[in-house]
Amino acid sequence: MMEQKPISQAIIKRLPRYYRYLGELIAQGVERISSNEFSKLMGVTASQIRQDLNNFGGFGQQGYGYNVKNLYMEIGKILGIDRVHNIVVIGAGNFGRALAGYSDFERRGFRIKALFDRDPKKVGTDINGIEVYPIDQVQDYIRKNNIEIVALTVPKDAAIALAQTLVGTGIKGIWNFAHTDLRVPKDIIVENVHLSESLMRLSYNIVHRDKVLK
Amino acid sequence: MMEQKPISQAIIKRLPRYYRYLGELIAQGVERISSNEFSKLMGVTASQIRQDLNNFGGFGQQGYGYNVKNLYMEIGKILGIDRVHNIVVIGAGNFGRALAGYSDFERRGFRIKALFDRDPKKVGTDINGIEVYPIDQVQDYIRKNNIEIVALTVPKDAAIALAQTLVGTGIKGIWNFAHTDLRVPKDIIVENVHLSESLMRLSYNIVHRDKVLK
Repeated sequence: MMEQKPISQAIIKRLPRYYRYLGELIAQGVERISSNEFSKLMGVTASQIRQDLNNFGGFGQQGYGYNVKNLYMEIGKILGIDRVHNIVVIGAGNFGRALAGYSDFERRGFRIKALFDRDPKKVGTDINGIEVYPIDQVQDYIRKNNIEIVALTVPKDAAIALAQTLVGTGIKGIWNFAHTDLRVPKDIIVENVHLSESLMRLSYNIVHRDKVLK
Repeated sequence: MMEQKPISQAIIKRLPRYYRYLGELIAQGVERISSNEFSKLMGVTASQIRQDLNNFGGFGQQGYGYNVKNLYMEIGKILGIDRVHNIVVIGAGNFGRALAGYSDFERRGFRIKALFDRDPKKVGTDINGIEVYPIDQVQDYIRKNNIEIVALTVPKDAAIALAQTLVGTGIKGIWNFAHTDLRVPKDIIVENVHLSESLMRLSYNIVHRDKVLK
């Protein structure tokens, strides 16, 4: 499939949600769905869905709706999850362990290959069959094992220092759980999971909910 | 402070980041900052910052810039984190334990009071001093302890069922880590942390990075 124009990050944010709903429809045995039904299910307008999918060449057929399995696979391709991405997790604390224990990622083509920690007591243990290695082996491991993504689940200062040591190893992305912005060259994509900020948005929307609901 | 008009979710998404940078400036002993310096630091345009803050009445003074501490406190008020929010976590697995162990939340006015789990082996244990209670006591606990927010760190199907049992307990928000959308009355605010979707956005931006970088 060819893409004509650059896709906005707003659309990219919505695509995984389409993918999730389509996966659920497949699990329920639904083979096709009209743009209106799909819109009702997802709580967005049918025209929004059509506009979003038109960025990738459409997929809908007039009077037929969407072929669920086909659309699911095409969106999977667009998201790049039709192939495996190898991941290592730095930080074998609770968050690192939670990521390693979460089998749902693997189902979507993400494979956590190893964890790294600076605590000698954690090194050599395993989480869900995934081994914990000493932190000073991480660059070498990345180079030898075709690792694309590093998940950083370490405190802020450690994350900033570690991100610098990862530059030049060939990684393509950092999944950053530290409460800071990382400064790395542009060819390393950073995706932030800032939990404190998520909690502050929740707080805002609670405190101002009369206004939010209007 | 009075707010005139409804604030867009896009601005609400940016406010916690302003708050984080201002907190770091305070830690560094910076007392005031020009709109241009602040803009450079945050990597957004000065006019974006001015526009965002104008929604709340400004704060900047011509030729002086922003008073860092004042702006920090005002944004804290807007975000509703100038007062304590009591939280319980349902699910004492790795994610629940990670949340309970994360002291940074407390610093920001969020206080995790208890965990709940259906596993009798976990009940009665504690994480970071926070006790694990049986899941069937959660409604009662919420009512008696002025709990505003429930963090759901349980699998999808359990999350959907649990969300229904929380309606009417008086909670104001659900911090949802389950990979599903929850359907609850509008007066309960749901803030989703969908990690799989975050990972898919990272995958998209890696696979299409030549286009993304252009």
